[in-house]
Amino acid sequence: VGAHVTEAQLAFDRRLVPLDWSADERRASFELTAPLCRTDGVLFGATALSAALMAFETVTQRPALWATVQFVATTAMGATIDLEISRMAEGRRSDQVQLTGRTGDQLLFTALGATATRSDGGIAGLGMTPPAVAPPEACERLGGAHRHQGRVGHQLISEFREATLLNPDPARPGHMAMWGRVLESATTTSAKLGFLADMVPIASCRAAGVDGAGSSIDNTLRIVGLEDTEWVLIELDGQVAAGGYGHGITHLWTPDGRLLATGSQSAKLFSIAEFMARQAG
Amino acid sequence: VGAHVTEAQLAFDRRLVPLDWSADERRASFELTAPLCRTDGVLFGATALSAALMAFETVTQRPALWATVQFVATTAMGATIDLEISRMAEGRRSDQVQLTGRTGDQLLFTALGATATRSDGGIAGLGMTPPAVAPPEACERLGGAHRHQGRVGHQLISEFREATLLNPDPARPGHMAMWGRVLESATTTSAKLGFLADMVPIASCRAAGVDGAGSSIDNTLRIVGLEDTEWVLIELDGQVAAGGYGHGITHLWTPDGRLLATGSQSAKLFSIAEFMARQAG
Repeated sequence: VGAHVTEAQLAFDRRLVPLDWSADERRASFELTAPLCRTDGVLFGATALSAALMAFETVTQRPALWATVQFVATTAMGATIDLEISRMAEGRRSDQVQLTGRTGDQLLFTALGATATRSDGGIAGLGMTPPAVAPPEACERLGGAHRHQGRVGHQLISEFREATLLNPDPARPGHMAMWGRVLESATTTSAKLGFLADMVPIASCRAAGVDGAGSSIDNTLRIVGLEDTEWVLIELDGQVAAGGYGHGITHLWTPDGRLLATGSQSAKLFSIAEFMARQAG
Repeated sequence: VGAHVTEAQLAFDRRLVPLDWSADERRASFELTAPLCRTDGVLFGATALSAALMAFETVTQRPALWATVQFVATTAMGATIDLEISRMAEGRRSDQVQLTGRTGDQLLFTALGATATRSDGGIAGLGMTPPAVAPPEACERLGGAHRHQGRVGHQLISEFREATLLNPDPARPGHMAMWGRVLESATTTSAKLGFLADMVPIASCRAAGVDGAGSSIDNTLRIVGLEDTEWVLIELDGQVAAGGYGHGITHLWTPDGRLLATGSQSAKLFSIAEFMARQAG
């Protein structure tokens, strides 16, 4: 792996999704362990994004710039997921890459992406400002009960707290924020940001005034910089819900207002009430 | 093509990118004519997105929900571009699709996407509000000189005007808007929205206080609804520029404030000054 990645970042990524690389360096696999699943024991979408970002960086030896993952099928805890990476174009400063994730013959997800060596003197500037929110210590953990009761799910290695907006804007009903952290570590990698960026569907429901979530159809993440921070401020904007599907965006910030990444997702939405009724029936 | 597409929409799409379908219905091709190019005579990125959206809708007979196009290589006016579409998953309400665009053996672009039949009673709501802008008649055409002098480029069938923001927000330096139209027609299709959604890099430069543009690395579009309108309000937010690369988002609105689509892009940025120097030297 290239000089851009520190030993601490490599160690962080290995703990998050332990990829087992084959000799040809275009194939890797990992076991779908409990922390890489949703609480219902199937592949957590953000795991696929994290693994794709990690694989793209390893093969190209450049930091990730962007990745989109398309979710095609899911699989259950214990499965071995095989990644196959293709480099479609190699540029002087950036590479275009693709990846498939399969278990056996079943395609689970496909990812497209780019990695890029940033230039020191390149055009630089920030177009947005982070929201004012209460600090993590003052915010309540989401799904708090899972922590100690559940033995399956990303909450085994991550934590999310709803971050109260101090200046909510009535013109943005889908605007909300969370504090998130992974592995209780301050090391930041592209894969860590990917692991935190699967929360948009909740905000798309919020835009419609509904307490709900969604099944992600895709997950797109665009990396800005990898500033170390334990807590990441996950700003969410549910843009719209229409006909049962929703679109939305996310901005990931350091607590002191540096932009780490931006993302977007589409999802099939459901209300918590619908979800509970389905579980019961 | 499914019942969701009207005759007017089919006719519009056929005029925009005349796809020639093969007998097996998984392959189509089109000629890269002058209006489907940039002014320098190579493939216009938005053409690839439009063609992908059209192809996804034709093969699945459902309206597009989302598409991401990865740009791998380009080609010159006159080339024949061959599309190959794969349906990866067929659901009750939505399909997951992929597509490649090649000229000869050369891969030009890959697209991932989904199409979805919307449900009438589904979760629905809007999370954002459109910006207040001057009407198209009061706004100046961008690249006005091209119209009559240039014989190559998308301006042969489209028009863009910078739409002055009436209430600019100093906290959003990358926030800007344009009016856009295609073929001087009020018919709206997914492909038309795709053709208008390649403007984000300009806003990413603006976020950095630079008058510039960029080479798109990808183009992601998420469709909300297909309301007929000649003029489309293209709201742009340059989110960030860092190390010479930029990320940004777009919202496409009808003039009366209905959301048609949202999008995002990453690009390699350059200033107009750099571009002129390169042309000269």
